[in-house]
Amino acid sequence: MTRFGRRDEKLPDLMAEAALAAMADAGIDRPDAVIVAAMNPEEFTGEGNYGSLIATRLGLSHVPALRVETATSSGVAAVYSAFAAIAAGLQRSVLVVGGEKMTHLATPRVSEIIGRSIDPHEKSYGTTMPALAGLVTRAAMHRRGLTLREISQVAVKNHAHGARNPYAHFRDPVTLEAVMESRLVADPLRLYHCCPISDGGAALLLTVERRAVRIAGIGQGGDTLAVRYRRDLTSFRATQAAADAAYRMAGFGAERVDVAEVHDAFTPFELISLEDTGLVPPGKAGRATLDGHTAIGGRLPVNTSGGLKARGHPLAATGISQLVELCWQLTGRAEGRQVEAHVGLAQSIGGLATNNWVTLLEGRR
Amino acid sequence: MTRFGRRDEKLPDLMAEAALAAMADAGIDRPDAVIVAAMNPEEFTGEGNYGSLIATRLGLSHVPALRVETATSSGVAAVYSAFAAIAAGLQRSVLVVGGEKMTHLATPRVSEIIGRSIDPHEKSYGTTMPALAGLVTRAAMHRRGLTLREISQVAVKNHAHGARNPYAHFRDPVTLEAVMESRLVADPLRLYHCCPISDGGAALLLTVERRAVRIAGIGQGGDTLAVRYRRDLTSFRATQAAADAAYRMAGFGAERVDVAEVHDAFTPFELISLEDTGLVPPGKAGRATLDGHTAIGGRLPVNTSGGLKARGHPLAATGISQLVELCWQLTGRAEGRQVEAHVGLAQSIGGLATNNWVTLLEGRR
Repeated sequence: MTRFGRRDEKLPDLMAEAALAAMADAGIDRPDAVIVAAMNPEEFTGEGNYGSLIATRLGLSHVPALRVETATSSGVAAVYSAFAAIAAGLQRSVLVVGGEKMTHLATPRVSEIIGRSIDPHEKSYGTTMPALAGLVTRAAMHRRGLTLREISQVAVKNHAHGARNPYAHFRDPVTLEAVMESRLVADPLRLYHCCPISDGGAALLLTVERRAVRIAGIGQGGDTLAVRYRRDLTSFRATQAAADAAYRMAGFGAERVDVAEVHDAFTPFELISLEDTGLVPPGKAGRATLDGHTAIGGRLPVNTSGGLKARGHPLAATGISQLVELCWQLTGRAEGRQVEAHVGLAQSIGGLATNNWVTLLEGRR
Repeated sequence: MTRFGRRDEKLPDLMAEAALAAMADAGIDRPDAVIVAAMNPEEFTGEGNYGSLIATRLGLSHVPALRVETATSSGVAAVYSAFAAIAAGLQRSVLVVGGEKMTHLATPRVSEIIGRSIDPHEKSYGTTMPALAGLVTRAAMHRRGLTLREISQVAVKNHAHGARNPYAHFRDPVTLEAVMESRLVADPLRLYHCCPISDGGAALLLTVERRAVRIAGIGQGGDTLAVRYRRDLTSFRATQAAADAAYRMAGFGAERVDVAEVHDAFTPFELISLEDTGLVPPGKAGRATLDGHTAIGGRLPVNTSGGLKARGHPLAATGISQLVELCWQLTGRAEGRQVEAHVGLAQSIGGLATNNWVTLLEGRR
């Protein structure tokens, strides 16, 4: 993956940087197919036809290429598509590369583009993604006893992790006080409860051969585009269904997971996601975080990369970068933040939890 | 599929109309997954997250859904993704639905959006898709002896076919004279050599069970985004590679094909595509067209639906609608335009032939 953050390079160059690194690492310079993830390159960069554009940029214009999209979880949708093509015997090796370039645009324009993932009717009332996240957070505080201190501690932890990751957007630790006193974005969410707008690319090379890390399970879950139609605002049905499917494929459950990357676009989502995936019992994620159980050195390190909060969130790169971090953790290459792990879980959220993914990676003993 | 043309409905409603018809026809009301094809719904309609949006619109919000894109051939990319998921054993039934809504926008805006598929450098000189197609056509006339009469006869034939298809955008026959005297768009291409801007949706239900029609082969081919880097302007490498892959998977060749739908976004592309797929020997497609061999009643009926030229071209719906037409032909349901056919070939072009697909469908004897 590239370093995430404000990058001057164009999106094809960021994707190429990640893709070439993945191909070099795998020792495969001509994959059978290329699958590109980008949430909205047309509006972010003015260019489309991204499958062909990236294949051409990589000198692989004769290699079949396509683009897959599930809003902010597009990266994992691309991994799934590659997994399916290989499992079907259609290809032996597939390059998956995702990325987004956003920081060159004004924030209101970025919000407008991201806001296309929201139910049109809800959007007609002026709803934004942070506004919906604020609504979910307020409901979780009211109904499930989530506290501001808990969601703030997630930011403190993930910034501390990001400080140890050379690929992270933010590498400065933050204090609990700074988080809780940062400016209000969408009540009760403050600036430091929200991930940044980032540029970056990430890539994986999937092959039919057994290598250092294998995909043990991958599952997808859906939910209504309109948040108002959901039975429960304080957990994500799409994550629960994705986790069920991934555990079913893997043939094991949450008890085998040693390390996790979850989608903390807003810090309360880390807590909700830990419970939705069964990694932490219902209602216990806040306490586990305050007690340090999810920090590096704790019993279940979560977002060792810094998470979306500190590593950054270049949309379609994010889900892939979670798996890159797990690959590094499972193969002993997470220098400066290495944990002891054999099985890793990644959870990615598309839109306001309309299209979520859970992936289980297993290292070779 | 929906009727193609100027439609007042919104894109989700067009896609839903097609999807519900496909599900009813298959007798499956809850597929295991939904795969959506749309080239650029964000810019055409202002909405994104189309996997979740369409699944929700269909009352299938809990069914995993994703979107696939390869520019103007996106519909077939979605079919391929569904095929791979089923072949991998990940799903037993997948709804594929594609569509585009364009006619509500001014033509220059539609051209701008479609133009995002062109190599950025070539676009910087003011190149448009019709301009590139004009370049290809001029080269084919100069180097391969293609004539204006031949490319005009394709329009006459396809309008005659469209007149027999209740789903077609254009249902009026045109004369050779009218085609050759229509206004110039991009020399030598005239208005009637170009497909219209259309709205519409199309859907297929793929299942693991053997039904009336099976996918015997599906192949994808790529080429450089930049047209200037290609060895040959007068044939499409991406079609040739896609056809090779599809025939290889099917275990048979062009000689078994009884009926074909090819991507005549510009009428000379029908002739080029017939030769690239091996359906007609090199240099013979123009003559075959003038002699009526590719008309309904001829020995290889091509674009019985009217093709992109007359059925219309709602981008991501197009590749799927080609397969819908073949399904109808192979099961004796192409009322008013039925031909005798057991094997059908569909060929779809993404961008300026950067990302092409060939699919072979086989009916049950």
